[in-house]
Amino acid sequence: MPPPHIIVVGGVAAGPAAAAEAARADPEARVTLYEQGPTISYGACEIPYYVAGALESAESLVAFTPERFRKERGVSACIEHRVEEIDPERNHLFVRNLRSDESHRVRYDKLVIATGAKPRVPRIAGVDAENVFPIRRLDEAEALRNYLDRHPVRHAVVIGGGYIGVEMAEALVERGVRATILEPQGGLLNRYLSPSMRRRFEEVVLARGVIIRDESAEGLDVGTDGRVRAVHTDRGEKIGCQAVLICIGVVPDTALPLAAGARLGSSGALAVDDSMRTNLPAIWACGDVVEVRRVIDDRMVHLPLSPVAFRTARVAGRNAARRGRGRPQRFGGVCDASAVRVFGCEVGVAGLREVDAFDAGIDCTSVEITHTSRSSRYPGSSPITVRLVGERGSGRLLGVEIVGSDGAALRTNVLVPLLHAGARVKDLLELDLVYNPPIAPPRDPLLIAASALAKKIDAPISRGGARGR
Amino acid sequence: MPPPHIIVVGGVAAGPAAAAEAARADPEARVTLYEQGPTISYGACEIPYYVAGALESAESLVAFTPERFRKERGVSACIEHRVEEIDPERNHLFVRNLRSDESHRVRYDKLVIATGAKPRVPRIAGVDAENVFPIRRLDEAEALRNYLDRHPVRHAVVIGGGYIGVEMAEALVERGVRATILEPQGGLLNRYLSPSMRRRFEEVVLARGVIIRDESAEGLDVGTDGRVRAVHTDRGEKIGCQAVLICIGVVPDTALPLAAGARLGSSGALAVDDSMRTNLPAIWACGDVVEVRRVIDDRMVHLPLSPVAFRTARVAGRNAARRGRGRPQRFGGVCDASAVRVFGCEVGVAGLREVDAFDAGIDCTSVEITHTSRSSRYPGSSPITVRLVGERGSGRLLGVEIVGSDGAALRTNVLVPLLHAGARVKDLLELDLVYNPPIAPPRDPLLIAASALAKKIDAPISRGGARGR
Repeated sequence: MPPPHIIVVGGVAAGPAAAAEAARADPEARVTLYEQGPTISYGACEIPYYVAGALESAESLVAFTPERFRKERGVSACIEHRVEEIDPERNHLFVRNLRSDESHRVRYDKLVIATGAKPRVPRIAGVDAENVFPIRRLDEAEALRNYLDRHPVRHAVVIGGGYIGVEMAEALVERGVRATILEPQGGLLNRYLSPSMRRRFEEVVLARGVIIRDESAEGLDVGTDGRVRAVHTDRGEKIGCQAVLICIGVVPDTALPLAAGARLGSSGALAVDDSMRTNLPAIWACGDVVEVRRVIDDRMVHLPLSPVAFRTARVAGRNAARRGRGRPQRFGGVCDASAVRVFGCEVGVAGLREVDAFDAGIDCTSVEITHTSRSSRYPGSSPITVRLVGERGSGRLLGVEIVGSDGAALRTNVLVPLLHAGARVKDLLELDLVYNPPIAPPRDPLLIAASALAKKIDAPISRGGARGR
Repeated sequence: MPPPHIIVVGGVAAGPAAAAEAARADPEARVTLYEQGPTISYGACEIPYYVAGALESAESLVAFTPERFRKERGVSACIEHRVEEIDPERNHLFVRNLRSDESHRVRYDKLVIATGAKPRVPRIAGVDAENVFPIRRLDEAEALRNYLDRHPVRHAVVIGGGYIGVEMAEALVERGVRATILEPQGGLLNRYLSPSMRRRFEEVVLARGVIIRDESAEGLDVGTDGRVRAVHTDRGEKIGCQAVLICIGVVPDTALPLAAGARLGSSGALAVDDSMRTNLPAIWACGDVVEVRRVIDDRMVHLPLSPVAFRTARVAGRNAARRGRGRPQRFGGVCDASAVRVFGCEVGVAGLREVDAFDAGIDCTSVEITHTSRSSRYPGSSPITVRLVGERGSGRLLGVEIVGSDGAALRTNVLVPLLHAGARVKDLLELDLVYNPPIAPPRDPLLIAASALAKKIDAPISRGGARGR
């Protein structure tokens, strides 16, 4: 039997990780990766810091060139090659070389789809103008940075106040550009933070001169030079600006597998089982194109985050390289942990907020406490606010939101094993977390919050006395 | 039935916590606390920062004065009262008022012993000289700080290179005093770090001009002014100095309960069950005087650390206040987590090192990796070294040592829930730890280490092929 040909489609993060894992798992296999863009294996999450200038060159975001990837990982990476069609019946791909514009047919034994996600772009007038920048790919980031370097941009409008939106606003401010964020969905990071926590974060952003407007963009006013000069909002306002950044999230890029008959899940992303297999024979998928199981409420979610992409990629790559030996590797799901740091303020979240728990039909309660990051009297100690959610009855820990500085976001990770294990809030109180005045206070903010929440969970419910009647 | 009288002996950390918990649990109880010193409820762990000058006044270390403690916690705290004898048959205490030098008898219904630990002092000539300072109590710290303020101390010898020793060396350096640490047991923090990790930490300490000598003090050379002017070592050397700090650890202060018939455990500290009860009727104990169960190897250990003191205190206080209702509260044990930060270098440890595992008869293996604290290309990223130990066969996670900066020690806490739960090294790989370039790299150092260790645990053993024959 000739060695199998494993093909990976997509070269940003999950694709290269899956390809490298497959080559590692089966050193005899021939592993090929196709990427339609000019670059593989880059840190898309570092784009805001590249735009800000904290990272010098676009090359510094690139982990592997195709040459190094072949040499060090044993994978043939073909850039500027677009996979246009999958024929799952015959195990064929149709691939177009974008440089020569020639198309050819390639046979695969196993296929891994890592087409990722693409930025959501609002369908409004003027969105194709020269100074409108969706922020997703490295070339788009380079275009933005070049534009900012060469044009007198004094004010930019960021459409969308999620993670990328606030990071880009920080990047603009660090470059001396004034920024306005348009976020009509209820404030910054509204998909991640409860209203009270959101306000704490917004205070920091506002203090740095960023304007936050509860409005959506209805159209862009393009001048005779082909550049946007103002944004029209749904409140009838006109915001003058010299650049527009589109940061309203991403959608899984499912067109290719969908056309081949792949099934989508309830989240709209590609459905895979816990071995990262699609419904099509010999086809796996990973990264931002797939949906994953959130262990806390068993819901399938689309979570376009780098660590999730790498984890699913390793499972997909490993399983695609399996030749019937042993059991396939399983992906254990996520607890939906993520973090961001902007203007020195850290945000870390994991699991469910109250609103998510209610959504999942889980009866919950919560506390919000503020404590110090180090011994209160130690220099450099700063406030950390922890919001903790637990299930009534079972006392199970459901989720956490943290806002602060000085290790606020890293503390989220302490709760990740507990959320994965379905631990109770009380279990947190049994942990001997480290104490040292320059590192953490005698009782960590996490423990202060857990103690308050455990008391609240144990207390009889007062709302109308529904219980025990 | 009149309300019970609950007496707590010892007022530094565990005592006040137990007393406050007892008063909270049974608001009708009369709660009295006796402390032989002049102060209650202070942060002994903050003493090095007070000596360094980072914390202004000794008062800033005190959480509660007796007045505030009575008012806010409902506990009568009697300072300068020494409990001299316990009569467990008659539920009596003999208490001496050190100011009036009068002794009286007091009846208790429940007693909580929180006499803590006292510094180990070497039995060498000159140890009682004016400029020799054991570092444990607040008054000793004040004496040292006053001495350093008033005398031209250019060089001080720190006897002992554990946590307190290295913290005091840092405090001296920050005051402009040169420091020599004498540590004959195999380098700094040898009770906590493996040799290779120790060397990384020592490099930082040495770089700040501290001298580390592998020698023990055999005697102190006292001048006619009653002050030490040199330390004689076991190598026959004579180290000139103007002050000596004694930091060779502490021993549980068990004299009082021992005389009353209390049993000691295998560690030499007071034995208690998991409800913090001693073998004597109606007597509980907590804090630095007791031993606790280390969950990883089920060994009883003496762990004089503040978070452990607070946890045992809450259990002891709560259970002492119980009037037969409900089940007693249980102490869940420790995983032996601790941390220190000196000269900007953080050390965090939890669980067992290889040497401890071998000691406990556990077959283990380990890895040591160095990775970055943030995205490698992000400014402020710095190296973090993680040493991870796992059990062969079961794959269980046994322990971790971390040395580095920028969140090195806080990362220890992520493993604490896993160590408490007896999780496998592989379970760590299933965690979606947070990623954001300014906070953590795409794969956290913990995951890099876990991945390497999991591979090593799964690999066939090569040493002589002992397995499978």
